[in-house]
This record gives sequence, structure tokens and C-alpha cells, in this order.
Amino acid sequence: MKKKLFKIGLNSKIALQEIINEKTKNKVLNDYFLLIEKNKKKILNLNKKDIDLAIKKRVKNNLIERLKLNEKKIKQILISVKNIIKLKDPCNKIIETWKRPNGLNISKVTIPLGVMGVIYESRPNVTSDVSSLCFKSGNAVILRGGSEAINTNKILSNLFREALEKNKINKNYVQFINSKNRNYVDLMLSKMQNFIDVIIPRGGKTLVQKVQNLSKIPVIGHLEGICHTYIDNEADMKIASRIIFNSKMRNTAICGATETFLINEKISKSNVNLIFKNLYDKKCKLIGDTKFKKKFKGIIQLAKEKDWSTEYLSATVSIKTVKNIDEAITHINKYGTMHTDSIITKNSKKAKKFLTNVKSSIAMHNTSTQFADGGEFGFGGEVGISTIKLPPRGPVGLNQLVSYKYQIKSNGSIRD
Amino acid sequence: MKKKLFKIGLNSKIALQEIINEKTKNKVLNDYFLLIEKNKKKILNLNKKDIDLAIKKRVKNNLIERLKLNEKKIKQILISVKNIIKLKDPCNKIIETWKRPNGLNISKVTIPLGVMGVIYESRPNVTSDVSSLCFKSGNAVILRGGSEAINTNKILSNLFREALEKNKINKNYVQFINSKNRNYVDLMLSKMQNFIDVIIPRGGKTLVQKVQNLSKIPVIGHLEGICHTYIDNEADMKIASRIIFNSKMRNTAICGATETFLINEKISKSNVNLIFKNLYDKKCKLIGDTKFKKKFKGIIQLAKEKDWSTEYLSATVSIKTVKNIDEAITHINKYGTMHTDSIITKNSKKAKKFLTNVKSSIAMHNTSTQFADGGEFGFGGEVGISTIKLPPRGPVGLNQLVSYKYQIKSNGSIRD
Repeated sequence: MKKKLFKIGLNSKIALQEIINEKTKNKVLNDYFLLIEKNKKKILNLNKKDIDLAIKKRVKNNLIERLKLNEKKIKQILISVKNIIKLKDPCNKIIETWKRPNGLNISKVTIPLGVMGVIYESRPNVTSDVSSLCFKSGNAVILRGGSEAINTNKILSNLFREALEKNKINKNYVQFINSKNRNYVDLMLSKMQNFIDVIIPRGGKTLVQKVQNLSKIPVIGHLEGICHTYIDNEADMKIASRIIFNSKMRNTAICGATETFLINEKISKSNVNLIFKNLYDKKCKLIGDTKFKKKFKGIIQLAKEKDWSTEYLSATVSIKTVKNIDEAITHINKYGTMHTDSIITKNSKKAKKFLTNVKSSIAMHNTSTQFADGGEFGFGGEVGISTIKLPPRGPVGLNQLVSYKYQIKSNGSIRD
Repeated sequence: MKKKLFKIGLNSKIALQEIINEKTKNKVLNDYFLLIEKNKKKILNLNKKDIDLAIKKRVKNNLIERLKLNEKKIKQILISVKNIIKLKDPCNKIIETWKRPNGLNISKVTIPLGVMGVIYESRPNVTSDVSSLCFKSGNAVILRGGSEAINTNKILSNLFREALEKNKINKNYVQFINSKNRNYVDLMLSKMQNFIDVIIPRGGKTLVQKVQNLSKIPVIGHLEGICHTYIDNEADMKIASRIIFNSKMRNTAICGATETFLINEKISKSNVNLIFKNLYDKKCKLIGDTKFKKKFKGIIQLAKEKDWSTEYLSATVSIKTVKNIDEAITHINKYGTMHTDSIITKNSKKAKKFLTNVKSSIAMHNTSTQFADGGEFGFGGEVGISTIKLPPRGPVGLNQLVSYKYQIKSNGSIRD
């Protein structure tokens, strides 16, 4: 099995010697679009096979829901491919160029990252989305999907390979690990560092944690999104109320949902009640500190230390009273996960201080943390959000799936 | 011991909440400069202590040479600090800014990478160079120098801490592991992933290999520089001869020295003799394939498979005959280490093909590979050269020691 995996990596390495122009890339993606359309029935049938098996195995209902394709979901897959066709090729762009007294003309030029290993769970649209994004950015991709979606993933990746072959491109730009054996994941992470350049985990905390712990290859991703919104005493309280409600309740299950509100102690009791009323009315569970409990008249549970580092991903939120912006920033840098954090204030100096000093990949002013998303940034889709310190950080879209090289020309310069 | 190390990391984490302006940074660096000048005698005395101990322990002469400081070397250290003062602060620069229909004003802004862990060998100037570069780029640094230079490294790092304290900056921006115990290196690499953001190894292959194998933290560095120069049949043979000699012989011990020449089979016997004559005359050992042996009249050894992946770092070079540019590119991408590779040709189409298709961090045209150096790039010093695929790649100077965050402003935007 090890040998077989190594062959997959090696093939991808060879594939990468080809530099494919934008026109050809778009031709492949358009053929992929047409092939999905043409094979819609077949895809739905194979998806049904996966679902029947999952039901037999008593897989949980919410997982089956994610796994399930229908006409509408296939249409979304198709729209996604079309959107990626419209995005500009991010490769071979000159970032910077300069001349040196030693005679060197230096250009910094974008290049593909190389071979991506993507490990994901039950949503089959990841297969088409990620393959399209990786291919458009010049990268080869090795896909390892959830075992319960294997038939759906297989056909979606095979159709991509068909589109590649049709255009005489090495079909190993997209590879799918056609096995339910879990050892393949361990092998990818711990034995293929010479063949895979970046690992992207897409899925729940258990998956991401496993990948981060085992991987000898750089990982683009994030374990948790413990996002904060700090309401300053100089906030516009109406804006605060609106943003607070949206940042928690628009979708409680996404990583950009606020999990902790930090509230300045100078805000009056009536304003506190004004801004948290909506959350309370809509049955959001409020877990607050003693000071907050004194100010807010709704029933709230008292917060424990571990609440400050809990990602609820549900209609629950923790609330802490802070003395000032400094305490808010310190709290965020201590308990946050460098994901997305926002300040609500009318004071632009304080806003600047907050934006500069929180370590978050995404720092916001008077804005809902729910905007933490590649689509909202204008990236035309994302493979995930990265919270490590090294680039790429934040939403990782097409333009973030490239690295760079230096191209140097001279007329025979030699070094003294 | 573990607990102590964790404290070091934690301190650095806290230190990073301060954002220091350029003026203060330069003030600290200038005070460091003055303190080194003032304590020159003390530094030389402590260095002598290190050298005496090394001699007693029968450390090799070349290592002692590296370890040794004198007036001239201290002057170089001082010049280096002065040069870093002159470089512009790379932090808090807006890389890109755009508006979105959802009301978001997004800026991509440079930030420090965080806490750097630098593990290095005997040269004490690394202590001052790296501390200055890391501090000017806003990063905290944990230094682990070679045990034989411990007294010299200690005073050089302590003087930096003195300069920090003098300016009321947290002195833990620069930390030095004052112990010869090797377990500290293992602990840094395998237990401090929550406290150190990037590891930089500076030293020989054994050190780098150990760091790359053990580290759970991203590593900036390179194991080997197997650099190639391809001489095309359309090369200017005089330029070729000059570059070939320089790229191998200027300094055979640096990572940017060419280790393998690839030579187009269409180049005539007389030209082959012309371009390799200088190398041969200067006693460079030529290890070539059969075809090359037939063309070149000097005594050469026949190359074995392992020669194509050997970094000689001495006056020895391997030479392979290739059919065309494609074979040259394939060879480089197979045996190279993505460091620095050059093509010599008058044909600009071929040059473009080469620059685009080799996977090297630095791809060159009509240029000596010995230019692979941050100083030559105009970076004003470097902490090393990185050959991984993710940024930063190539020479890592001040501007490469930063990452980025997104700063977003809106007038109360909420997501639909």
C-alpha cells in the first residue's frame, strides 16, 4: 500500500513540470462542467448507492443530509465550477521587479504551491470545488474523501480526470484515493512529505486535530474559530445590537460565528439590556460573568473559566465584562484562535488600536464576524480559512493557493 | 526544564502584544551598536574563554576559526547592525486594499511572524545579526547557539536585552538558552509548537536534517543546495566559460555554488574544452558522464548515479551531457533541491522556458548561481535561504520575516 501511495505522489510531481496556460485550464474546467451535466443521472444514482449504504450502516441523519445530492445541489456544484472559470489565473504573475547594481534584474513571480493533499468528510461538493480551485491555480491534488461518500466522490473526480485527458493534460493533476482504509490518511500525513507540499483538512474538529497532530507536511487550516466581538463604551448602541445579533445568530454553526462578547463596564444597564435583548428573545443561551449578570435582567448562567475557550457552534454565547480596550485585546490574544475578532466603537483611534493589536487573521471594526468567508472577501470560493502565522492566512481562495519564485536575468554577471 | 522553556515561550507571546514603532526600534538597535562598541574588550575576553575551552576539548581547527572573534569581525558585526537600522520597518504596511459590495473595506496588512526559534552553530555573529533582523521585523526570538560559543553568544544577547530595557521594551524580545544541554533543542522542536511560530536552523546538514525531522513547527531553511548550471548550444561560449568558473570556484563552500553542470550535446568539442579549461587549470575535480569524457581532454572521473545528488561543497563538480533544454529541466526537477539553477543561452525563448519550468526558488539566466544571497538581492542581510514551496522562499531577509492579516472596516455591515 505504501508503494502505491508513493507512486501517486511521484506522478503528481512529474505532472507539475507542465505549465498550463489559462485558456487550456478554462477549457478543462468547461469540459468538466459539461461532463457533470451529461452524467447527472449517473452521479445521482451513485450518490443513492452511498446513501443506501449509509442508512444500512445507521449513519446519523445530519451526516446523511450532508452526503445527499439532488438536482439543486448539483446545480450549485455547476455554478461553482463556472465561477472558478471566471476567476483570473493566479500563476506566473509578476509581484515585484527590481534592478541591482551587480547587474541582476530580479522578478518575483507567482507559482503553484505544488501537490495538495486534501482530507475531507462527507460533503461531495468538496471534490469538485477543491479539484477546480487547485487545478486553476496550477496545483495537483490528491483527494481523500469520507468513506461514506466514496462512490459519489469517485465519479466526481473521475469526470475531472476525463476532462483532463480530453485536453491531453496529465490526468494525475486530480487523484482520488479509492479506498476506505484509514491507514491511507496516516501514510499521507507521515510518509509523503517528499511528495505532497501542503495538506488541507476540511471537516470537524476531530479530523483537523488528527491532521494537525500527525502531519509532517505544512497544514493550511484551523482547528477552532473562537471569535470575539468587543462592544466599546463609545459604540453606537443600535449598530452594536444589530451586529451582535447577526454575528452570533445568522448561522451559529460556522467558524466565523462570535462565541464570546466582551463588553465595556462603562456601558449602562439600559444599553446592555438594549443590545442583548434580541439574542435573549430568540432563545440564545447567555453565559455571563457576575458583572454582566448584575446588568442584564434576562436569565443567564454564570460563566466558568472554560467558557472563554469554548467554541459552542450553537445558540449559546459567553459574555465577559472588561475594564477597557486593553483588557479586551489581552483577553482575545489569550483565549482566541487568531481567527476573526471585531470591535464596535465610534472612536477611530480605539478602532486602529484594536485592528493593529489583536493577533487575529481577520480583525474587524463595526462589522459582523460572520463575514469571515472567502466568498465575502471576493475570492470566489475558498478551500478553507488558515489561522497559523505563516502565509497564507485568513480565507484561502484561488490567489492564496500560489507561492513564488525569483526569476533573475543578467548579461553574464558573475559575483565578486 | 520543560516548564522553564514553556515560560520562555509564554513571555515572548505576551511581548508580542506590544507594537513598537520604527523610531523606537532603531533607537534600540543603535543602543545595541553602542553597547557592543563599549563592551568590545569584554566580548573578546569571553570569546577567548570559549576558544580556550574549545582547544582544551580538541575541537577541530576550522570550527575554532568560525568561533573566533577579533577587531575585524566585531567591526563586521557593528556594520551589520548599522545596515539593519537603515532598512525600512516591514511591519504594518498595506499590501492591498479593496471595497466589497457588502460594505466591507478590506486591507491586507503586514504583521510580524511572531516568535522565531533560531538554532545555530559556532559563528557568534549569528546572535547579533538574527536578533537585529528579528527585532526590526517585530518578532521575538529564542536563540539556541552552539555550545562551544556559549559565553560569546550570552554576552551578545545580553547586550541586546540591555538595549531593550534601556528603551523600556520587554527584554524577552531576545532570549538566549543559557545551557549546553542538547535536550533543549528537542524540546523546542517537539513541545513548543504553541509558543514558537517558526524555526530557523543555521548550520551544517546534520543540524538542518535533525531540525527538519523533529520539528512540529514550520521550518524556514534548506538542507542542501544542489545547484545546476545548464549550458545551452546557443550560449555565448565566452560568457559560459566565465559564469561556469565563477559559479563553481568563487566560493566552493556556499550553498549557491553550482554542483552539476548540464551541457547540451550539440556543443562542439573545442567549445567544451574552451569553457571547462579554467576549471581544469585551477585543479577543480571534474566528474563527467561518458559523452563528456569523449569531448573533454582533461583527466576526469566517470560519474556514478549518486553524483547527481551530491552536494560537494568543494572544488569538485559533476557534468552531464543532455540532449536539449527539456532533458536539462527534467534533470534539475528530479535531482535538484529547489535552490538555485541557471541557464546560459542567447535564445530568449529557451531562457523563458527554463525560468518558468524549473522548480527552483531562484531561477537564473546568464547569471552565476553564486548570487543566491539576500545581500546580493538587496535585502540587507538574510536569516537563511528557504527551499520549501510555501512562502517565504529564496533568501529570507527583513521583508520576508513578516506575514499578514486582514483589517476590515464597515459602517455596521451585517451578513445576509
